[in-house]
Amino acid sequence: MKLRVRFAETDQMGVAHHSAYIIWFEAARVEWLRERGLDYRRLEASGISLAVSAVNVQYLRSSRFDDELFVQADMTELKSRRVRYHYVVYRGSETLATGDTLHTPVDKNGRALRLPKGWLEALYPHVSSL
Amino acid sequence: MKLRVRFAETDQMGVAHHSAYIIWFEAARVEWLRERGLDYRRLEASGISLAVSAVNVQYLRSSRFDDELFVQADMTELKSRRVRYHYVVYRGSETLATGDTLHTPVDKNGRALRLPKGWLEALYPHVSSL
Amino acid sequence: MKLRVRFAETDQMGVAHHSAYIIWFEAARVEWLRERGLDYRRLEASGISLAVSAVNVQYLRSSRFDDELFVQADMTELKSRRVRYHYVVYRGSETLATGDTLHTPVDKNGRALRLPKGWLEALYPHVSSL
Amino acid sequence: MKLRVRFAETDQMGVAHHSAYIIWFEAARVEWLRERGLDYRRLEASGISLAVSAVNVQYLRSSRFDDELFVQADMTELKSRRVRYHYVVYRGSETLATGDTLHTPVDKNGRALRLPKGWLEALYPHVSSL
Repeated sequence: MKLRVRFAETDQMGVAHHSAYIIWFEAARVEWLRERGLDYRRLEASGISLAVSAVNVQYLRSSRFDDELFVQADMTELKSRRVRYHYVVYRGSETLATGDTLHTPVDKNGRALRLPKGWLEALYPHVSSL
Repeated sequence: MKLRVRFAETDQMGVAHHSAYIIWFEAARVEWLRERGLDYRRLEASGISLAVSAVNVQYLRSSRFDDELFVQADMTELKSRRVRYHYVVYRGSETLATGDTLHTPVDKNGRALRLPKGWLEALYPHVSSL
Repeated sequence: MKLRVRFAETDQMGVAHHSAYIIWFEAARVEWLRERGLDYRRLEASGISLAVSAVNVQYLRSSRFDDELFVQADMTELKSRRVRYHYVVYRGSETLATGDTLHTPVDKNGRALRLPKGWLEALYPHVSSL
Repeated sequence: MKLRVRFAETDQMGVAHHSAYIIWFEAARVEWLRERGLDYRRLEASGISLAVSAVNVQYLRSSRFDDELFVQADMTELKSRRVRYHYVVYRGSETLATGDTLHTPVDKNGRALRLPKGWLEALYPHVSSL
């Protein structure tokens, strides 16, 4: 997923604030699904959300206002009760940051549940081995 | 309502980003209700939200990271289908910004409705004439 | 400028938070400049920022997660000490919101200054009469 | 540090968005310094920032709009080129999330440097062993 660093995402150090990367990861997950013909809105319409249960980010180089970035997302683990994504944020050929998020499928009341078989089967071919 | 400008709220000009004021106004509305023994969560639990239908802000002086600000909110109009608030953001005795928000009571599907009589009567004594 | 409503931009009413529009307006200003061969980073590199001195937004319809929006920006006033933009946010043919921002050219210390003649001349052909 | 979950911090799942915790951690670091008679603004005035080089968060329970939370921050590592904080987010006696951030002292151009001796000595007595 391509994006431009927004002015509002900068902080007084003149770089994109570290919390912005978490939001970019999320946007990249949504695009990752879309590119595979899946749709996060449809998942939610079926009463399932992928709650974030853990996140980690390593910041290697800072990014600046108006930088054009590329965020690569890969699903690296898929279980009925646990999904993991890995991310790399690039500016051209430079790696700016890497990270992972761990997700738990939950219902509308936030209770953990199993991903339905249909979604597991649809997602399975897209899991990357890193 | 008192608040500290968060680092994440600054931008690369070294000041609080103009969008942060909109969020402070909202937090000040919630505190305004609480100080009057009312509770926005209770309003929402009854199926009513106060959707924002218009906002305006005038920025007079900028604020900086870690500044201690005071946001004064006043309800300046109360009708069954329309609520207005006015805000002043102070740093000590300096006025940094002023603004207004206009609200429409809506149900959970976003459809306009009338504020119930009970809420109108509870709010009416707290309307300020500016 | 096209954009997708990010999940992080939604609130518990299930719609894009009203503060997000302010940030989209800003991103649309940056694209407006870029499409005209101008560059906000270059303006800032010359020691000039366009501080936001006022903003207003009218919200007509709400937008939802993953909606594809189009934000049209037009410069509607250009003076050496004052710049105004007007915005319309569309989802397809629906108008979701309109707004304006007013800007003051400032130096790195936030002091008002005049836009240099070169920038005025470069911008002048792009001013819209609404 | 005490805080209230802001409406703008919620998402359409009806809970505080996971990126908000990263911003609360930052606010808690600033208060941690203040409570010890130190001042992040003074550190920055001396030309030093504590850039975030890594962050991780574990989300155990979700938080909701208007929840009153308490964020405990502890400095768990202090070296001239590396500072680490640990965080616990509580709602009453419930633990909602835990996390860590790793920091690199940098100059105004983002270049790594050593924390000056004065700051090391001022901070050293406040390091927690977890």
